[in-house]
Amino acid sequence: MSLLVVGSVAFDALETPSGRVERTLGGAATYFALAASYFSPVRLVGVVGDDFTARDAAAFRGRRIDLAGLERARGKSFFWAGRYSDDLTDRVSLATELNVFAKFQPKLPPHYRDSRYVFLANIDPTLQLSVLRQIRRRPRVVALDTMNYWIERTPVELRRTLRHTDILIINDSETRQLAGKRNLLEAAEHVLRMGPRTLVIKRGEFGAMMLRGRSQFTIPGFSLRNPSDPTGAGDAFAGGFMGSLAAAGRVTPDAFRRAIVFGSVMGSFTVERIGVERLRRLTRAEINARAREFRRMTRFRLQ
Amino acid sequence: MSLLVVGSVAFDALETPSGRVERTLGGAATYFALAASYFSPVRLVGVVGDDFTARDAAAFRGRRIDLAGLERARGKSFFWAGRYSDDLTDRVSLATELNVFAKFQPKLPPHYRDSRYVFLANIDPTLQLSVLRQIRRRPRVVALDTMNYWIERTPVELRRTLRHTDILIINDSETRQLAGKRNLLEAAEHVLRMGPRTLVIKRGEFGAMMLRGRSQFTIPGFSLRNPSDPTGAGDAFAGGFMGSLAAAGRVTPDAFRRAIVFGSVMGSFTVERIGVERLRRLTRAEINARAREFRRMTRFRLQ
Repeated sequence: MSLLVVGSVAFDALETPSGRVERTLGGAATYFALAASYFSPVRLVGVVGDDFTARDAAAFRGRRIDLAGLERARGKSFFWAGRYSDDLTDRVSLATELNVFAKFQPKLPPHYRDSRYVFLANIDPTLQLSVLRQIRRRPRVVALDTMNYWIERTPVELRRTLRHTDILIINDSETRQLAGKRNLLEAAEHVLRMGPRTLVIKRGEFGAMMLRGRSQFTIPGFSLRNPSDPTGAGDAFAGGFMGSLAAAGRVTPDAFRRAIVFGSVMGSFTVERIGVERLRRLTRAEINARAREFRRMTRFRLQ
Repeated sequence: MSLLVVGSVAFDALETPSGRVERTLGGAATYFALAASYFSPVRLVGVVGDDFTARDAAAFRGRRIDLAGLERARGKSFFWAGRYSDDLTDRVSLATELNVFAKFQPKLPPHYRDSRYVFLANIDPTLQLSVLRQIRRRPRVVALDTMNYWIERTPVELRRTLRHTDILIINDSETRQLAGKRNLLEAAEHVLRMGPRTLVIKRGEFGAMMLRGRSQFTIPGFSLRNPSDPTGAGDAFAGGFMGSLAAAGRVTPDAFRRAIVFGSVMGSFTVERIGVERLRRLTRAEINARAREFRRMTRFRLQ
């Protein structure tokens, strides 16, 4: 099924305990699209500057990623620089230069307007809503990411966009902040009254939790021997999740749980190498093998 | 099967965001025995002072807990006072008065000496080993807890005791400290070369992980709406784990995984009320219902 992602395509400078890169392809839409493309064709909407070369675009080539919605603007692409702590649990932003992204106005090419699965990566909630208005028929699934910046600065706009959202995919501190509640379950229930029927809470190395109505699904994190770089893991998670859901073409409880598993698989692979390196070199066989590892790792019999 | 626990029986003063108590029954062996007794008869070895009254002993009465090994000494019982942070993730010790526990020399009553399942709660590793020497036949399972204090102060003694241990039950930071490795998987593998064939890593609200040979089992935490007091949750986890294992009477992979589930169940109940309050008022039906909730919460199909 048709899967649309709207979000940033950027260049990142990354400093991690296991290495550094000065300029590598990044951005939420990039990680999402690469991860999702293993499951489903992806349509990407974003903006890059004139520093984005054919060599950069090569990361998307040979995959089921439609770049008709990737706008080229004059100026430089969004640039982010970050440094991670030794145990990868903390990071500092060394630079955030929005550049052409500052004036980003998402425009859907005509053939994108029938998209049935939509992921609105972490951008201004007003822009997120403007994307939905360009889609002809109510999509089957609208999923959304956001962050503390929008929760604090544009609470009214975010609330409005949330009313048009089926699935909110955020982390635990964002869940608590959005709800204004310390307890995660209470916070989650509060958020589920804001519009989304499904809340997916990303918990990094501790896995993920999904709440839908009265049903809760929780998956532990996949322990890695040599975690390298957490950048983009949350977006790759969303990509695996939405890609799996779009590929299933059904929104059954089983399909949702499986989507969380594949989201976790894609997030865990992402952390294994710096930037998008691991995401670019995956096979579907590796993905399926890790999903089976998740199964072996979590299953038990009560009698 | 016969299950022995050796460890502290204490009085605690607890300050939590949801309430405080000045003097309540605590100690690792107490939490362990109460939790394990829902699954299996328990034999307890510990020491209390002359401030331990019949009213205090009532917590153990009417349960399958043998107190023949609970020594009465002159003086006061072990006393601990602690205060928890608002989100329960941090605590400070306000007082640690060993009292009669300072000279504790575990002595097994003759009828304890055939115990087949043994849990050595967090005490001096030399005392832990002295318990094993009092047991006639090599037990089927020897499980052990320890902490940073012993890892730092008595590394040689701890290593020696570990060579006689089947299962080590500790938390993630203790695993890293014991191995001197930052990565949890690497640390775990290092620890598994010290003697124990099974390592159980407690991760608090994030669940637990078990490593046995090449097999890994991971269970997420059980989210609570109103967590109240984490005191003793790790010992109740160990109690549920060992109680379930002893009740199974087999040490198969399935029995081990089920034991982790029941450990998690008992740990999660413990946190619901202050002190041992919740552990004292459980039913086996509630325990089984929560185990089924864990199952509903974690299961998925890959196709």
